[in-house]
Amino acid sequence: MTQHFTHFLTPPWSPLMEISPKQLQILDQTRLPFEEIWLPLETCDEAAHAIISMQVRGAPLLSIVAAFGVALHMDVDSSDESLKDTLYILKETRPTAVNLRWALNRMQDVLAPLTPEQRADAAWAEARKIAAEDIQTGAAIAQHGFELVKTLYEQKLSCHPERSEGSKLDSSAAPQNDITLNILTHCNAGWLGTMAWGTALAVMYAAKHFGIPIHVYVDETRPRFQGALTAWELQKAGIPYQVITDSAGGHLLQAGDIDVVIVGADRVAKNGDAANKIGTYIKALAAFDNNVPFFVALPSTTFDFTLEKGVRNIPIEERSSTEVLAITGRTKAGSIETVNIYPEGTQVSNPGFDVTPARLISGLITERGMCAASEAGISGLFGDLL
Amino acid sequence: MTQHFTHFLTPPWSPLMEISPKQLQILDQTRLPFEEIWLPLETCDEAAHAIISMQVRGAPLLSIVAAFGVALHMDVDSSDESLKDTLYILKETRPTAVNLRWALNRMQDVLAPLTPEQRADAAWAEARKIAAEDIQTGAAIAQHGFELVKTLYEQKLSCHPERSEGSKLDSSAAPQNDITLNILTHCNAGWLGTMAWGTALAVMYAAKHFGIPIHVYVDETRPRFQGALTAWELQKAGIPYQVITDSAGGHLLQAGDIDVVIVGADRVAKNGDAANKIGTYIKALAAFDNNVPFFVALPSTTFDFTLEKGVRNIPIEERSSTEVLAITGRTKAGSIETVNIYPEGTQVSNPGFDVTPARLISGLITERGMCAASEAGISGLFGDLL
Repeated sequence: MTQHFTHFLTPPWSPLMEISPKQLQILDQTRLPFEEIWLPLETCDEAAHAIISMQVRGAPLLSIVAAFGVALHMDVDSSDESLKDTLYILKETRPTAVNLRWALNRMQDVLAPLTPEQRADAAWAEARKIAAEDIQTGAAIAQHGFELVKTLYEQKLSCHPERSEGSKLDSSAAPQNDITLNILTHCNAGWLGTMAWGTALAVMYAAKHFGIPIHVYVDETRPRFQGALTAWELQKAGIPYQVITDSAGGHLLQAGDIDVVIVGADRVAKNGDAANKIGTYIKALAAFDNNVPFFVALPSTTFDFTLEKGVRNIPIEERSSTEVLAITGRTKAGSIETVNIYPEGTQVSNPGFDVTPARLISGLITERGMCAASEAGISGLFGDLL
Repeated sequence: MTQHFTHFLTPPWSPLMEISPKQLQILDQTRLPFEEIWLPLETCDEAAHAIISMQVRGAPLLSIVAAFGVALHMDVDSSDESLKDTLYILKETRPTAVNLRWALNRMQDVLAPLTPEQRADAAWAEARKIAAEDIQTGAAIAQHGFELVKTLYEQKLSCHPERSEGSKLDSSAAPQNDITLNILTHCNAGWLGTMAWGTALAVMYAAKHFGIPIHVYVDETRPRFQGALTAWELQKAGIPYQVITDSAGGHLLQAGDIDVVIVGADRVAKNGDAANKIGTYIKALAAFDNNVPFFVALPSTTFDFTLEKGVRNIPIEERSSTEVLAITGRTKAGSIETVNIYPEGTQVSNPGFDVTPARLISGLITERGMCAASEAGISGLFGDLL
């Protein structure tokens, strides 16, 4: 089955490409969903800028762009001081996602012991390795998440035998029953935030590929509307979805319209507390209040084993008020405009992430399989990394 | 004290004015906060349109505009059939807010027994009475809510004696200590949604007037950004505030940055379950999870005593997808533009309200005082209305 998983996403579905040796291009996510613009990534400064400005985003992708940022800089100056500087600059770009620091530590471990002459080639090789591993990780998350979704779907079918009877008789390609697994997701945890596949959305791509009927409720994810990116991905993949405001999930969960919540993560502590895009925590509360399972899909690079717990321990990035005040979209005439929706002088608070306590998380979907969001669950699967 | 309350809001702070007999004007809330445009309200159809298009909004104000809509129509045709038609048309404008139906039932009770010739004058008199009562109700809610806020502030002071010592010594007008009561609110429950004062914001105006230092976190309230209206009101009143996304409240509550949540309501069932703008329920969950009190401020006309409970019983309005997809604001050049932020063909689900279960509500702030959000609490204060 793994073979299917690694091949059904075609290569263009990656937000970062090395079109010829050392010629990197990134898909500018600040221009999506209106324009598909590929930008060259030629210097470490450009990599840092791409991360800060969110031309690239998503915890796994940040780590890969940062690794290539180091490689780009080693081509220019591979001295000890230059290595130290570039690692420092890239580490400071975003504070919450831990994958970024993981990748930079890995680059440092590989490059620091080498002579300056050896560093450029080694840096490129290591960055490419990190990128390739991320694709494998995505496929493995998809596979393990698929098992979960399949189980949930079969449970739902078994609760409505009268509506699923047709599926045993009808062998046509038409929908065989009217049971759909309804999934809520927050932010964008798709291939746009990784090298391919994604994390939470990887699970949905696998469900689609293997014929499980799903419908995805997409939180729009203010302030930056990453829900528009998720809608764009799902539309491209032919997966039915509806965008909802970040406020609507509670009502839909209460009304029984959602069967499972699956989100990504930016940093997960040893005890399973999970930092993710602002608004994830209240969705987890609403899922818990309505007995709907809530899963976090993540690569192991998202674990921060230096933190015993996440709540009040994971640093939360306070972002610019402009993100809340100014909204960019397309006018009816087709031009891209930025509008301000608040009175002049409006004050804003804009925390970028929140931490969902482990007690609200039904399980973690990782490249090594599922585990409980607890120290025991995590150390059971990842004891070798602790 | 009541005297102060009823006088500190000057008359222009009302979204509906009768500038000369039977000459009504409404403040067009779809143009705020960019433009302060007053529209004439000359026919029942205009009243219905103003309600549907949300030129006027807020449960109490809807009831008043509907009552005046009946009066306007009685001037044109006061026959039995015309009365029946106008009541029907106005009742159908919005399904969730019960105040609308309350006002229309009251108009019917007054007008139906009269001869057609008596109806126009009686309709105007009754609509004016409903409007005048609403101002008194707002002042009473402000007064009772003020007692609550004062208590919460004093509790916070007593937890930080070292930071409040100065207040006993310093009689200058400068801030006497650095303790501020941090309040979270959702949507707009200000004077814009009533004849004056508001409901949840009435409490904050009273706090400001009597010198309790407050800071208000304002949920932006997607899809229609009623948070911009609340920001506009608070800015006008000189009350410190910060706009936040609808996702941010959970994090702020978890971080201890919010002392109390106060919201309005559109319909409250006999058991205290409260329908309010979509997103209220998840804020109540987050407040509950962090032991922060959560209050609902409402006039008694918001009770629906025909409903034993609210969850799954109060009809939830499904509104147009355009509200989610298209956003109107002001460009840097100063023009008002509407931009679309999603890919073409994006599917949307847009429920307008949700229901907060009574178990999550610390208390109700009404014009008769505070009560528990329970059948016992409500019937204790409003037994005569049951």
